[in-house]
Amino acid sequence: MVSEKMKPFMANNSAIRAMFEEGKRMADIYGKENVYDFSLGNPNVPVPQVNEAIRAIIDSEEFNTVHGYMSNAGFEDVRQTIAESLNARFGTNFSQKNLLMTVGAASGLNVILKSILNPGDEVIVFAPYFVEYNGYVRNYDGTVVVVSPDTETFMPKLDEFEKKITAKTKAVIINNPNNPTGVVYGEDTIRALAAVMEKKQKEFGTQIVLISDEPYRELAYGGAEVPFITKYYGNSVVCYSYSKSLSVPGERIGYLVIPDEIDDCDDLINAATIANRVLGCVNAPSLMQKVIKYCIEHEVTVNLEAYEKNRNLLYSALKEYGFTCAKPEGAFYMFVKSPEEDEKRFCETAKKHHVLVVPGSSFACPGYVRIAYCVSYEQIERSLPAFKAIAQEYGLCR
Amino acid sequence: MVSEKMKPFMANNSAIRAMFEEGKRMADIYGKENVYDFSLGNPNVPVPQVNEAIRAIIDSEEFNTVHGYMSNAGFEDVRQTIAESLNARFGTNFSQKNLLMTVGAASGLNVILKSILNPGDEVIVFAPYFVEYNGYVRNYDGTVVVVSPDTETFMPKLDEFEKKITAKTKAVIINNPNNPTGVVYGEDTIRALAAVMEKKQKEFGTQIVLISDEPYRELAYGGAEVPFITKYYGNSVVCYSYSKSLSVPGERIGYLVIPDEIDDCDDLINAATIANRVLGCVNAPSLMQKVIKYCIEHEVTVNLEAYEKNRNLLYSALKEYGFTCAKPEGAFYMFVKSPEEDEKRFCETAKKHHVLVVPGSSFACPGYVRIAYCVSYEQIERSLPAFKAIAQEYGLCR
Repeated sequence: MVSEKMKPFMANNSAIRAMFEEGKRMADIYGKENVYDFSLGNPNVPVPQVNEAIRAIIDSEEFNTVHGYMSNAGFEDVRQTIAESLNARFGTNFSQKNLLMTVGAASGLNVILKSILNPGDEVIVFAPYFVEYNGYVRNYDGTVVVVSPDTETFMPKLDEFEKKITAKTKAVIINNPNNPTGVVYGEDTIRALAAVMEKKQKEFGTQIVLISDEPYRELAYGGAEVPFITKYYGNSVVCYSYSKSLSVPGERIGYLVIPDEIDDCDDLINAATIANRVLGCVNAPSLMQKVIKYCIEHEVTVNLEAYEKNRNLLYSALKEYGFTCAKPEGAFYMFVKSPEEDEKRFCETAKKHHVLVVPGSSFACPGYVRIAYCVSYEQIERSLPAFKAIAQEYGLCR
Repeated sequence: MVSEKMKPFMANNSAIRAMFEEGKRMADIYGKENVYDFSLGNPNVPVPQVNEAIRAIIDSEEFNTVHGYMSNAGFEDVRQTIAESLNARFGTNFSQKNLLMTVGAASGLNVILKSILNPGDEVIVFAPYFVEYNGYVRNYDGTVVVVSPDTETFMPKLDEFEKKITAKTKAVIINNPNNPTGVVYGEDTIRALAAVMEKKQKEFGTQIVLISDEPYRELAYGGAEVPFITKYYGNSVVCYSYSKSLSVPGERIGYLVIPDEIDDCDDLINAATIANRVLGCVNAPSLMQKVIKYCIEHEVTVNLEAYEKNRNLLYSALKEYGFTCAKPEGAFYMFVKSPEEDEKRFCETAKKHHVLVVPGSSFACPGYVRIAYCVSYEQIERSLPAFKAIAQEYGLCR
């Protein structure tokens, strides 16, 4: 009954999602407070202004406008508000036509990949990376080409990148700030990456789209700057989600930016708008679109301090217990070296202590585990004895 | 820049959506009250209980539960509530595992088609039909096979249907009540359809899935009954949307029912859940899922009287003016015979009178036009002189 194309997905179903389901199962058995689930990027910090926005909108606007159809690209006023906000923040020059509201970033990635990929086209990613990208690329019969990880810095290996670009390379996906490592690609990195791509575009006479997946854009600590890629490279597309910045991952709201500078801009915008419809989304959820406008107008920002506090507590504890980990500059993940080579076994050991983390092999980077610290501060506090016990079991501390 | 697969979509972009955009443009020029836009199935009848539900949920439930991630299939309690409601209404025996919450019916159709179609598989539809199905099927490299319309009754031509089933037929899509004709396939029709499919499954040793797209299920007038297909045919999937019954098409909320009776049920449910994630939806919008549960528990039903009143007014007026049209039993569409052979020219004539209707060729049934009467009663009243003037222009009345 099941299609051939779906079968590999079923054989390699998301380890992250499996862990999430396992966490729910364990919480039922041991009590929620006794399971330390660090598996999923499901933000724990409420953003009460979202609910204020919802109340204000349904109290003041007409029912059928709030909940009805609009253009497939989204409400014009919402898109214009986002465009102007980006322009003010990044010195760009977007208008509503460059914005396409999407059902979160995952759908945005599907929309842009459907719009540009022909069968056999190659899409380059940098390990470690969010492996759902594999599925998104395979949906359109593309092939993922992985650049191996630089486990010293977790920055893109540009030499290997340059060698892996071929005449078939249609897109490159970066994720900045990065899931799972928490590193931020700074301006120098983006410039160097863009230079390689420009050179290769000329060499092959091709168009290579740089897709920046940026749900964590606002989650950068200590003043780390996240460059806005359309300023560095013409054939750029930005894929954004409000899941993390407004703590609404269940609501599925985000956007694509397709800048004027991209080749065949109008055609591509048109194709992406149709792809959004034909993939079945039709449009991004309407009330949530209006919530975004309200939140921009009311200058609602992410509660960065909460995540930074979590990061600081967990990072210093893990260091103290003898774990090896680079201090993350962004997002809400820590990518910790497994004390044994097979990090899946390490995950099993952690699970015995009721600590749920995701194996690095789920990010094409075995030997590491990802810890999502978008949980309550109290959960981190409560989990520390368990992390210490794990470290003791591996002889990392006494 | 644009992929080869997207190009035909761009060449044949939705005439319905084009008309909707044209309606907005004309409203800007002539004033909203002077443009009679019957192009889109965008319900005009508010369902205030939806807003009550939203208020109740955000006032009483935890922020991160309401707006956070849940299982990709949707909240268990929401799915269980829907399952029990279906069981009570239709004597079925579903539980939450048979329900998959989707980003509307369009996404539900994509999810099930991705789950079952291999390249070259055939999907049978009955003209006139919602032509977006073409796109959904092409997304997974399937081929649409059209059974020609019976313009007397607009019921499925079962002889032709039987002849068009081949060893490659993987699915049949019906839409009941029907867009664009407004007819309802009754129990006899469904039984006959199922019998043909059973026979052909045996003949070819294949599995043929009957997909019933049912956003208009609750919109049936004068006691017309819409059979629940899983009771008549094992390999059935129901695709539902709340867009029309709760007037929330912008919110993108619906579900798939995958019954225990279907072959490889557990695998198919698993595949569909993964497809929902990998296509980028991840999950159906979370707040809206909870709204559905609230509305079921509070027995919120569609305002059928409003649509029936619209239907009666428009139908009697069009008949009086000399137009030819079967009285619709369901949905909120009328499928009217064009007074000239080329119905696209008729649509242009209507547009001169500020009346926007959609050509039947957009439903694989030229010679007819679709009128969506899910507008305000006042719009229909205001539009009648325009319809009369059009009829006079064609000499249908004096």
